[in-house]
Amino acid sequence: MFRKVLFPTDFSEGAYKAAKRFESVNEMLVGEVVLLHVIDEGTLEELMNGYSLLYKNGEIELEEIKEKLREKAMEKLLAEVDDVKRTFNAGKVTPVVRFGEPWEEIVRVAEEEDVSLIILPSHGKMGFSHELFGSTTMRVLKKTFRPVLIIKTRCRCGGGRR
Amino acid sequence: MFRKVLFPTDFSEGAYKAAKRFESVNEMLVGEVVLLHVIDEGTLEELMNGYSLLYKNGEIELEEIKEKLREKAMEKLLAEVDDVKRTFNAGKVTPVVRFGEPWEEIVRVAEEEDVSLIILPSHGKMGFSHELFGSTTMRVLKKTFRPVLIIKTRCRCGGGRR
Repeated sequence: MFRKVLFPTDFSEGAYKAAKRFESVNEMLVGEVVLLHVIDEGTLEELMNGYSLLYKNGEIELEEIKEKLREKAMEKLLAEVDDVKRTFNAGKVTPVVRFGEPWEEIVRVAEEEDVSLIILPSHGKMGFSHELFGSTTMRVLKKTFRPVLIIKTRCRCGGGRR
Repeated sequence: MFRKVLFPTDFSEGAYKAAKRFESVNEMLVGEVVLLHVIDEGTLEELMNGYSLLYKNGEIELEEIKEKLREKAMEKLLAEVDDVKRTFNAGKVTPVVRFGEPWEEIVRVAEEEDVSLIILPSHGKMGFSHELFGSTTMRVLKKTFRPVLIIKTRCRCGGGRR
């Protein structure tokens, strides 16, 4: 029984599948899941700068676009709430959207929400990939004071081949 | 409920304390704990080489010393079985002693025992320490296909300051 779990998602399939595999081998029971999506502000601004000549008033455009992105991300999180609730056997799922550097926001939300566990994927956009440093998972691992469960997105989780 | 957990120990206090803190915030329930101690063969041989001039038959001495070390390590593991059983709410605790490179043996035993989770400390002899690469925890993380729970030996695990 995990009191409160932070589960960051970049909406890729890997982490969900890994969580389901983990659940199929270890029965999970979670009080609350904080389902977090971080919109990478650095990437967003870089993208916007590439188009900045097209805009008369860049800042206003950026705020509008950020608001639309936030709405879109929240919609996507809300669409996943029931599935996440089932996967984690969770009493409650709280969707949260943040802007910023993904690893920083994950560490920050873990503290703000006083979670008892952070669940992170080993590979994929957030995970280790080829490069060990620089990945979101590795930076969170180094910086957080909270326990971290690394679920393998390339996995043999026990209980035979999957 | 974790089906089968691999909990490597170097007999330092940090990992036990971290496991207890984790348990105090997240109720654990474990089918079986494989309590593993790896005697670092590289260090042992290096140590023996330093004294090799003292021995007439180095190899026989080494085997004798290894056997004594194995007995000693098994005694220490057995002395911890009850405490580990309570800490993890475990149905069963199986003590295992291995010789070799610690990270390699941890990855190997995880496969052999088909564990559903490996629990590792973030800091200390096995953990990250100052150097990120080279630590046992980091190497296991990179190499294993099993889920890994990193418990913070320098920790705020949720539920206030500890």
